[in-house]
Amino acid sequence: MRAAVMRQQAFAIEDRPMPVPGPGEVLLKTRLCGICGSDLHQFSHAEEIDALARSMGAPGQDLSKGMVLGHEYVGEVVGFGPGCVEVLNVGDRVVSVPFLLRDGAPVPIGANVEVDGAYAEHFLGTEALLLKVPDGVPDEAAALVEPLGIAVHAVAKSMLGASDLPCVVLGCGPIGLAIIAVLKMRGVTRIVASDFSQRRRQLAETMGAGRAVHPAEQSPFAALEAAGPVLVFDCTGVRGVLSQTINAAPHGSQIVVAGIPQGEDSFSPMIAIAKELNLQFVLYYTPEEFAAALQAVAEGKLDWRPLVTGRVGLEGIAEAFAALGDPEGHAKIVIDPWSDARL
Amino acid sequence: MRAAVMRQQAFAIEDRPMPVPGPGEVLLKTRLCGICGSDLHQFSHAEEIDALARSMGAPGQDLSKGMVLGHEYVGEVVGFGPGCVEVLNVGDRVVSVPFLLRDGAPVPIGANVEVDGAYAEHFLGTEALLLKVPDGVPDEAAALVEPLGIAVHAVAKSMLGASDLPCVVLGCGPIGLAIIAVLKMRGVTRIVASDFSQRRRQLAETMGAGRAVHPAEQSPFAALEAAGPVLVFDCTGVRGVLSQTINAAPHGSQIVVAGIPQGEDSFSPMIAIAKELNLQFVLYYTPEEFAAALQAVAEGKLDWRPLVTGRVGLEGIAEAFAALGDPEGHAKIVIDPWSDARL
Repeated sequence: MRAAVMRQQAFAIEDRPMPVPGPGEVLLKTRLCGICGSDLHQFSHAEEIDALARSMGAPGQDLSKGMVLGHEYVGEVVGFGPGCVEVLNVGDRVVSVPFLLRDGAPVPIGANVEVDGAYAEHFLGTEALLLKVPDGVPDEAAALVEPLGIAVHAVAKSMLGASDLPCVVLGCGPIGLAIIAVLKMRGVTRIVASDFSQRRRQLAETMGAGRAVHPAEQSPFAALEAAGPVLVFDCTGVRGVLSQTINAAPHGSQIVVAGIPQGEDSFSPMIAIAKELNLQFVLYYTPEEFAAALQAVAEGKLDWRPLVTGRVGLEGIAEAFAALGDPEGHAKIVIDPWSDARL
Repeated sequence: MRAAVMRQQAFAIEDRPMPVPGPGEVLLKTRLCGICGSDLHQFSHAEEIDALARSMGAPGQDLSKGMVLGHEYVGEVVGFGPGCVEVLNVGDRVVSVPFLLRDGAPVPIGANVEVDGAYAEHFLGTEALLLKVPDGVPDEAAALVEPLGIAVHAVAKSMLGASDLPCVVLGCGPIGLAIIAVLKMRGVTRIVASDFSQRRRQLAETMGAGRAVHPAEQSPFAALEAAGPVLVFDCTGVRGVLSQTINAAPHGSQIVVAGIPQGEDSFSPMIAIAKELNLQFVLYYTPEEFAAALQAVAEGKLDWRPLVTGRVGLEGIAEAFAALGDPEGHAKIVIDPWSDARL
């Protein structure tokens, strides 16, 4: 089968052997797979990420093997490995949290050299983790369940609860936009977004932000005009933003750090203390939150349509990665390995 | 009246005019006043603190006027200003959150050059904020209500709730020790403390820590042997400890930052994200938490006795400040302005 293999900051379309499902595993045909910010991050920083993982006690990996990215997938059931329950039927469309369960332990799909992701014609899933995509849900929506699950999780880990706290969303890439959609779904009425890109600010307002500001022109906190604590989502992944946010956020605010800045960051603890700030760092989601994102999409509660701005085949991935470097262009590009579409 | 005036990192015993209570204010005679870590901090860093306050938009102050510190006080009612309700009687012992309410706004007592604190024979309180100290509560215990209130607040702002989360307390100065006492009162059964000083480790075990480790010899996280998230209280006020703690804390842990490190601090956001850590910065307490600390002391629920290790008169303050630089010596030293005691 054909796969886009990432190696040394380049993609090559290679023939790889068809994956063979192990016990409890299912062979899936890729219908669509979104390009995630973390894929861009892996593309640019694979060696640093590996070094950090090693420093945290994880086993390292042999990056020369090449990595098949892709974890925002919707697949179609093709066949079953041994020991499957087979409640699903061949042809069913499925999504899942992007892990295989092997020997009871989660192994990430599309984020290491051992388990290929869905930048390929086929890939594997663990049967027990697969969720059937209801009829009527478009493939594009199903491929967005993963990033929407990230947003559901970030909001669930925040102090929002049942309140209508005013919210600031910093950075309007796909995660920031998805968080705006989830906040809107949760009934938040005061959302101010911030991004340097006019296109992304427009998208933020389309997704549900009452206002979107250029951070060099107006502070989002000033635009919000909140009298008390604010719930801030830092989705920029940019070093220095956390420190600026600590300096700018009102007393009692919470900063949810959903972007992934590389390297060290610094701030003044005394300012954070004087304002009794709370910092919540978030990653991924629970299986329940992932399922909640699928359900919200299926029930039409989450407005996902403005997020998808492009579609490419495997040969278009390199161009798509380059295009995603320009925020004025695209938000979410999805890959259809069976198509020869280019941007 | 006699007061210890701090100016340019030195104390002078000066005659100051007897304070005159304004509307709603009460003249108090100092019975005891504790020396707080923040007093030591003011002593060493008054100019930096003033500069930081100015940078955050507060009006600066004229430090050449001299500052009379002291906000961990128990006072005795001497007289009333105009407009007081006078439910208290002359001779009653009182504590309060260390603020005057002037024009409806809180003005700190003993932390600026405008409102003198209780390193003096007399000081002022706002009647509406005064809490009567029940008979039978020793003056030492009443003087500890303020730092115990800090600890009550730090624990209340944490994710402890009704759980029995394992806890790590970093730094066993008075606040760390008070937090250990509050955690014990709250029914936490697994507390590991960490301090370089043998004396402070002994005090930590006396206050309720199951174990106290020397951080260069053993990680408190290893000593705790916790399988899941840990609640960490950083009471060191030392730069770099937060970053070390982010690196060492288990997944899902919360770090409550109760110490006040000066300057900038740096850490790796990616590690905090990978472990979904929560950072809660805390300062002060609510009036309700302050009252809860008094009640807990009055009911014998908080074991305060090991905390008080010394008592001095006004002339002994300089020596006491120097002595508190050595953690092997003292934990909490209280000032009795009517005594000529020295260490």
